[in-house]
Amino acid sequence: MSSPPALANVRVVLVSTSHPGNIGAAARAMKTMGLADLRLVNPKYFPDPQAEAMASGAGDLLQRARVCATLDEALEGAVLAAGASARGRELRAETMDARAAALRLAGEAAHHPVALVFGAEQAGLTTEELSRCQLLVRIPTNPDYASLNLAASVQVLAYELRMAAVGAPEPPPPEFPPASLDDMERFYEHLEQTLLATGFLDPYNPKRLMPRLRRLFSRARLEREEVNILRGILGSLPK
Amino acid sequence: MSSPPALANVRVVLVSTSHPGNIGAAARAMKTMGLADLRLVNPKYFPDPQAEAMASGAGDLLQRARVCATLDEALEGAVLAAGASARGRELRAETMDARAAALRLAGEAAHHPVALVFGAEQAGLTTEELSRCQLLVRIPTNPDYASLNLAASVQVLAYELRMAAVGAPEPPPPEFPPASLDDMERFYEHLEQTLLATGFLDPYNPKRLMPRLRRLFSRARLEREEVNILRGILGSLPK
Repeated sequence: MSSPPALANVRVVLVSTSHPGNIGAAARAMKTMGLADLRLVNPKYFPDPQAEAMASGAGDLLQRARVCATLDEALEGAVLAAGASARGRELRAETMDARAAALRLAGEAAHHPVALVFGAEQAGLTTEELSRCQLLVRIPTNPDYASLNLAASVQVLAYELRMAAVGAPEPPPPEFPPASLDDMERFYEHLEQTLLATGFLDPYNPKRLMPRLRRLFSRARLEREEVNILRGILGSLPK
Repeated sequence: MSSPPALANVRVVLVSTSHPGNIGAAARAMKTMGLADLRLVNPKYFPDPQAEAMASGAGDLLQRARVCATLDEALEGAVLAAGASARGRELRAETMDARAAALRLAGEAAHHPVALVFGAEQAGLTTEELSRCQLLVRIPTNPDYASLNLAASVQVLAYELRMAAVGAPEPPPPEFPPASLDDMERFYEHLEQTLLATGFLDPYNPKRLMPRLRRLFSRARLEREEVNILRGILGSLPK
């Protein structure tokens, strides 16, 4: 499955990033999920060899990254900006968790450009920057240790965007044909005869043995070839 | 909201990790999502200052990490092991995406220890290691660039586990306790010996028989009592 087209409409905007390695790691995280449009507002160091190194195979995103002087410039043309926020910001904007926000963003992105905005590593988004976001996104975390780094936050949100944009994936066609119910009945007969012959199954005191074995193999949803193997084993046993 | 209790039952097992920085970054990713039980099978370098540095505030997980000689040792007592896999592995085990696998793991973890297993950075899990996993987990990625690093994979799966554990209503206690993975290994040994004795399994031409049988019984998720029944049957066969 290639990347859903909506993802091409999603910008990731990193504001005032201090460590160029984080820019590279964020680019890598984006590309693994099919995002490509990276915008950097006032990065402290960029371009930078550390960014290149951390981007690994996502150097193309760095090449094409747009460096912007202001957040407004980075958001130009977008219809929805969601700001990643570690804390609750009272009264600022509607707050959603990562999954709900990704659904909203992916929905809009089917038709229009949208942006996911990340603040500086330590301070996060400023009040001024948050005022440009219509939505706050919070990643659910351990309240005792919520210290996701920038690239990890990008990774989780990019993953949720991909999941939202892909929607319910087509289940793969079964590779291996399942056993038919009559195959199963013949297998159970063969198994029962074997267990009677060895004496493990006492016909006068069967103790629900066969129903239990049926329950087990029903759960496994045997394939045709597996039934053949099991019957082969039964046939190979010494009489 | 503090971390859901099921998460305490989830082990993260890193097998043959080459770069200690990845161990630290994985510990940090775990802790942000409320996971705490880290097990290291044959790490190349551990303990190591790079692991400490990358763990940031998650050094306590490194302190308490258990270093194991084998994967079996790391899985001892667990009832379900899910192996992270980038590629499809034909015939190996049931494969689920990260979200579905997290729901399954979190459900089991409400009552029993479970494990999420990650292979070496470059090669991933070996065939032998995969044979210990009942479930393969795939993180949906960009097919043109699926290069999630180890800590990023841990981050996404730990996030999904947290989402699943927080969201899941308490499941009722299982009526029938599941077999432990060590019970399963003993069953497979017993089965293999039996098949060698009857000649159905040719040691010089094993034809993937044991992997196929493992796959079948993994899918069934055997209960403890069912393993006892199957071993009873094996023990009752004429020698």
